Amino acid sequence: MVTEALTEDAAAGLARGFKALGDPVRLRLLSLIAARAGGEVCVCELTDAFTLTGPTISHHLKVLREAGLIDCQRRGTWVYYWIVPARLAVLSQLLDVSAAAASTGPTR
Amino acid sequence: MVTEALTEDAAAGLARGFKALGDPVRLRLLSLIAARAGGEVCVCELTDAFTLTGPTISHHLKVLREAGLIDCQRRGTWVYYWIVPARLAVLSQLLDVSAAAASTGPTR
Repeated sequence: MVTEALTEDAAAGLARGFKALGDPVRLRLLSLIAARAGGEVCVCELTDAFTLTGPTISHHLKVLREAGLIDCQRRGTWVYYWIVPARLAVLSQLLDVSAAAASTGPTR
Repeated sequence: MVTEALTEDAAAGLARGFKALGDPVRLRLLSLIAARAGGEVCVCELTDAFTLTGPTISHHLKVLREAGLIDCQRRGTWVYYWIVPARLAVLSQLLDVSAAAASTGPTR
């Protein structure tokens, strides 16, 4: 994918995903949800894992969701969150291909 | 790596890397450098590829460098940039493991 330069449009979409990951709380939230091995996590469990307020956690979850990295569903009192593997895979592959391309070059 | 939740320290370091990637111009710069297949790219070529000013390009390159994603060396008039594959690989693997963990779970 990055054996040639990204187009402006492609870069804009990908950057939105990376920007959402560029915060320690959001990375920890994502890792907590991913650690559930494909299952879903109740927002109540996520809130218990941090010393942050509920609204702060909800804000960070919204940023992750708007970037397409997680999705959610309300059932009764609680909202349940899960990872969107395809979106994470696209971002992962971009970096993986970049790293691979660079390491096949002349040794520094 | 994310089969359990990230620690606060680990998350802070990783978030710095993702934050640097969360901008379309920086992603395009990174892809241009990575596309050189392991070689290095003169800052003059990077500046030519954008309609942005030299100082703006230099600012974005500095953010990428401070996040450990690229490195550079001045030789004569020009500065030459190259990718740091190990750092990109760490970020890639975090997302890859998250995606893999999520997709092994129950089908939605």
